[in-house]
Amino acid sequence: MSSSSPSPRSTPHPLDPLTVEEVRAASQTLLNHLQLERTKVRFKVVDLAEPPKNPTLHHLHHDGPAPDRKARVYYHVKTSQTLLIATVNLTHPKVERTYDAPDSQGPVDWVEYELIHRTCLSNPAVKAEVAKLKLPPKARVEADPWAYGTDDAKEKRRLFQCYMYAAMSEDGEANHYSIPLPLAPVFDAHTLELVELQRLPMGTNDILDAETQPWDPVEPVEYSANIMGEDAFRKDLKPLQVIQPEGPSFKIVGRRVEWQKWSFQLGWTLREGPVLHDVTYDDRPLFYRVSMSEMTVPYGDPRSPYHRKQAFDLGDSGFGLTSNSLSLGCDCLGHIAYFSGVRVTGDGKPVVMPNVICMHEVDEGIGWKHTNFRNSKSSVIRDRQLVVQCTATVANYEYILAFVLDQAANLHVDVKATGIVSTMPIRKGLQVPWGTVVAPGVLAVNHQHLFCLRVDPCLDGDKNNTIIYDDCIPVTNEPDLDPFGCAFRVHTTPIERPGGYDLDLTKSRVFKIINESRINKVSGKPHGYKLHAVPSQMLMMSPRTFNYRRGIFSAKPIWVTKYRDDELWVSGEFTNQSREDTGIAEWAFRDEPVKNEDVVLWHTFGITHVTRPEDFPVMPIEKMTVSLKPTNFFELNPSNDVPRSSQSLNKSTLHQVGSESCCDSRPSKI
Amino acid sequence: MSSSSPSPRSTPHPLDPLTVEEVRAASQTLLNHLQLERTKVRFKVVDLAEPPKNPTLHHLHHDGPAPDRKARVYYHVKTSQTLLIATVNLTHPKVERTYDAPDSQGPVDWVEYELIHRTCLSNPAVKAEVAKLKLPPKARVEADPWAYGTDDAKEKRRLFQCYMYAAMSEDGEANHYSIPLPLAPVFDAHTLELVELQRLPMGTNDILDAETQPWDPVEPVEYSANIMGEDAFRKDLKPLQVIQPEGPSFKIVGRRVEWQKWSFQLGWTLREGPVLHDVTYDDRPLFYRVSMSEMTVPYGDPRSPYHRKQAFDLGDSGFGLTSNSLSLGCDCLGHIAYFSGVRVTGDGKPVVMPNVICMHEVDEGIGWKHTNFRNSKSSVIRDRQLVVQCTATVANYEYILAFVLDQAANLHVDVKATGIVSTMPIRKGLQVPWGTVVAPGVLAVNHQHLFCLRVDPCLDGDKNNTIIYDDCIPVTNEPDLDPFGCAFRVHTTPIERPGGYDLDLTKSRVFKIINESRINKVSGKPHGYKLHAVPSQMLMMSPRTFNYRRGIFSAKPIWVTKYRDDELWVSGEFTNQSREDTGIAEWAFRDEPVKNEDVVLWHTFGITHVTRPEDFPVMPIEKMTVSLKPTNFFELNPSNDVPRSSQSLNKSTLHQVGSESCCDSRPSKI
Repeated sequence: MSSSSPSPRSTPHPLDPLTVEEVRAASQTLLNHLQLERTKVRFKVVDLAEPPKNPTLHHLHHDGPAPDRKARVYYHVKTSQTLLIATVNLTHPKVERTYDAPDSQGPVDWVEYELIHRTCLSNPAVKAEVAKLKLPPKARVEADPWAYGTDDAKEKRRLFQCYMYAAMSEDGEANHYSIPLPLAPVFDAHTLELVELQRLPMGTNDILDAETQPWDPVEPVEYSANIMGEDAFRKDLKPLQVIQPEGPSFKIVGRRVEWQKWSFQLGWTLREGPVLHDVTYDDRPLFYRVSMSEMTVPYGDPRSPYHRKQAFDLGDSGFGLTSNSLSLGCDCLGHIAYFSGVRVTGDGKPVVMPNVICMHEVDEGIGWKHTNFRNSKSSVIRDRQLVVQCTATVANYEYILAFVLDQAANLHVDVKATGIVSTMPIRKGLQVPWGTVVAPGVLAVNHQHLFCLRVDPCLDGDKNNTIIYDDCIPVTNEPDLDPFGCAFRVHTTPIERPGGYDLDLTKSRVFKIINESRINKVSGKPHGYKLHAVPSQMLMMSPRTFNYRRGIFSAKPIWVTKYRDDELWVSGEFTNQSREDTGIAEWAFRDEPVKNEDVVLWHTFGITHVTRPEDFPVMPIEKMTVSLKPTNFFELNPSNDVPRSSQSLNKSTLHQVGSESCCDSRPSKI
Repeated sequence: MSSSSPSPRSTPHPLDPLTVEEVRAASQTLLNHLQLERTKVRFKVVDLAEPPKNPTLHHLHHDGPAPDRKARVYYHVKTSQTLLIATVNLTHPKVERTYDAPDSQGPVDWVEYELIHRTCLSNPAVKAEVAKLKLPPKARVEADPWAYGTDDAKEKRRLFQCYMYAAMSEDGEANHYSIPLPLAPVFDAHTLELVELQRLPMGTNDILDAETQPWDPVEPVEYSANIMGEDAFRKDLKPLQVIQPEGPSFKIVGRRVEWQKWSFQLGWTLREGPVLHDVTYDDRPLFYRVSMSEMTVPYGDPRSPYHRKQAFDLGDSGFGLTSNSLSLGCDCLGHIAYFSGVRVTGDGKPVVMPNVICMHEVDEGIGWKHTNFRNSKSSVIRDRQLVVQCTATVANYEYILAFVLDQAANLHVDVKATGIVSTMPIRKGLQVPWGTVVAPGVLAVNHQHLFCLRVDPCLDGDKNNTIIYDDCIPVTNEPDLDPFGCAFRVHTTPIERPGGYDLDLTKSRVFKIINESRINKVSGKPHGYKLHAVPSQMLMMSPRTFNYRRGIFSAKPIWVTKYRDDELWVSGEFTNQSREDTGIAEWAFRDEPVKNEDVVLWHTFGITHVTRPEDFPVMPIEKMTVSLKPTNFFELNPSNDVPRSSQSLNKSTLHQVGSESCCDSRPSKI
């Protein structure tokens, strides 16, 4: 396996994110090609166009030539509203392809976001409507432009619905989501025209007031330490620090990370955030690419305009683009490495996004332990893990996405949901069936978060893998074999055709990736990795709905497709205001073999969030973990060689029983 | 709420474990009562007989008198095989009740365990059979006496089946489980007679050899650091330490623990290990008692004698009795407090079991975070947790049980399964449908672990609570209300009658404990705690089997019963060789109201373990987490008042990019 070049600036690894120089070169090459001045073009996205898999694998594993570096560019020529896409070759500078997508809307970019925000707040009609609320002078009105969603297959305009709020303090963290205002103007992102000044229901539909009423004052629920004041905090939390006196156990060369027999190329895209490429353990290839592919959030409130609320937070916004620039000691303890990203400005210039990924080690408690009860001799290892993490802030809400590696060759994908729930106004004293009143005058509508993890395996370096599922099924009606009825068998079903598949907890169904051609010498079974899925309620909305048709992945927990280059995004490339899914909806229904082929496994999981006051103002994290664990891949516990835990290394301290009397003060011998 | 007395030795808290003095007094009081000498009695168990709930609650919350301290004693008079039970009042020393249980077998105790072990190894017939194996001279033969299980309702003898192994080194951690021998003698625990010298199948039943064949040599798979040698270990793991410069955030007075608004009385029993009593948050009562009630492990192999393998590791052995005596720095990092337990010897003397519970704080990453994207101002708290943990070694296997409290008022129960899987011999080259060959000559049979958590709630201090479940169900056929089909409602079903209830992932069904008489001022909904269940395959064996009839709890994930004193153990008091469940099988089928009554919630969860070579020699932990989370119990996020995370407290260190080139070396401004 070749490692990345020591000089990433000159020759980045084929799967590395675009560098500052490459983003600059991509936009300049495109401008040259278009023969347009910089001021005539609006750049939206410049991101790596990943090279095709075959030559890349050939390069990585067989010293083949490096594939060309290329950029994918989304842009507008300012005279038109049509979304344009270009592929720019950076190794041999030229535009390879341009095409338009007149029926699609590109993702949100910061330029238009800020523009709509400003337009909304200065729009005279909006201001007149706000004036009717008779907010106190200290109120600062805010607007969050939201992806408009879909309720009309014929809608062609690029629309944003602004949800509006009032902050009641000048503090930079005043919680305006605690004062949702009852209006939601819709703007055309191209013309910046006010399309509709929609008013919001304050209860059930039928009590939409004839006229906007003055705001009914409530105290906002704040999380800002400045506003809350020192006395509002608990006083008895003592500091806890992680020290690594010899530094971390990882090594980083370019964007190649090596840690505890793991090795991977740390990718990053504006759309997905961190991506693991070319993942190996003990020099044995496991996965070509592991990534979060999409996440959709349908809200369960039928009242207009809430029926349209269904964010696709990767496709509409991007976990990379919305990633926080992290700072030391806030998101991680111990020894932290950071990685930065690059985005593009509207006029095509690169902007470094510092520290969008952090990486550090954690101690997850006991990794394994056994005590010989005959002599009390004990062996124990601690579960050291490597965490590669980002925090995406999508307007009010936060997603913390982490790839977590451990010493037992498990790869975990953690998603932590936090941030501020999307809030709507509700008249005091009312309730609606669609959510919970989480603060005075504040409704948080129930919703789902449905994620899709994409796993592109290459166990033992072979592109051809097979997805199987194992069911545990009791033996029945075989009294000679099983007279006492205790037996159960593992039934294996290989997946022969692409499609969506169900979990089945009643059978402990486990999906596995196996390499049929490599057999474990100890067990006689094929090398594999199993998916520890997160069993979840799937999308509740029926197949006739836009919710379903835009994100078909959300209807089944498991999908299997045959690999094709560029099929990375499960709901299709353009989700913003999409009417139909152009991703898995097509790929999973091709009639082609997937057994012992280049196959991709997708896992849909999530939560149905029934809101509670405890989720406000900022929601305590809700964590989901998907794991990929070896099964018949190794000949013994891969962490058997981890040095044993010992006090000489751990340097724990004993709680001394002083004035407190504890059972330990009892005699220790009788 | 009264705190425990400052002098636990003289007047322990009513729910505290028995002290050394109390165990001594209990056995002496019983001997006096029986008018028998110490040598005529075999003590098995002396443990706290918990006081009835009503007077205890009255004592704890209303300054009522302390209920009497009492001991429950299991014992034999040596002239008889009948299990005897006594209740001994310790406050007013006297024996209150004695009775016999002639149809029941008590749990295993260390005296008989050691006796059978020694008897087995010195038995001439066993030795003769072992001799046929022609083991090498270095082999040290070992025997693990196993709870016999049940395949005959008429069996009245107290039986143990010894599974036998050979260690190939004198090292104290030589892995004898890697050399399972093909014999399993059965002994009568009272007479110490060899009942049957059962031979074990080496493949499918029909190839049980006519005569025992010599052992087919293999190399054992070892985990002992001494045997493996220094070169066998990975070298690149750097130390990671947790320091708490100002000490821990907890306070301990007697066995009362206070931490971050939580307060609880830390109980411990020989049967259950740690138990949380009288749990409050911010002085608001939540739970009267939270405990692991039982765990059963049925094995899915129909070949005799494996069909009988079904351990009840709490009822047969005890998580407390088998708990490791922990030592500093091996099981936890940071600042550690330990708690000890007491058991009884065969002749009635107390023995301190030092450090059977450890308690420490951990940092679980981000607790919540929000960033105002307008100005990048960010608030984040770390998720500090308090972990109360024990490790039970039940022969080959380890269970790590932890109660974990966090600052968002969540109570988590973690179970980590580790240790060495139960191994059986198998002829090289063969496979059977019942398990996986995990090492040469070693079969690990597939099995289930089914746990039952018992939650006795008292939200807001009221005994009367209600269990409800909420289902998320889409609106259908209401086009006027929901023209686009996005709406869903939460349907609530209160549980009116005791019984077993199902989870339903297709509806995101969530079980909740609510207090109907306390309404959240913000949301208008009743105060509650919800159960984040572990969705699991239930027991596979059918209702006709002994597996099912002995542990009916394992057939349903949720059980609800009306509280009665002493109904703590879900499969009944005596599980060893039980023929019928005498616990939930009776309690859940009483026709009595449970809505707005003193109610108990039970949750069955677990894993179906399909074994793999990666689980050997010691299995990497498999973790399950059940959580109890507030819902409409607080008026806002209970962790809103946690001091914000900051580098000044966390003192993290930055990974410096030196010879390694990282993206951070790019210019940070354009």
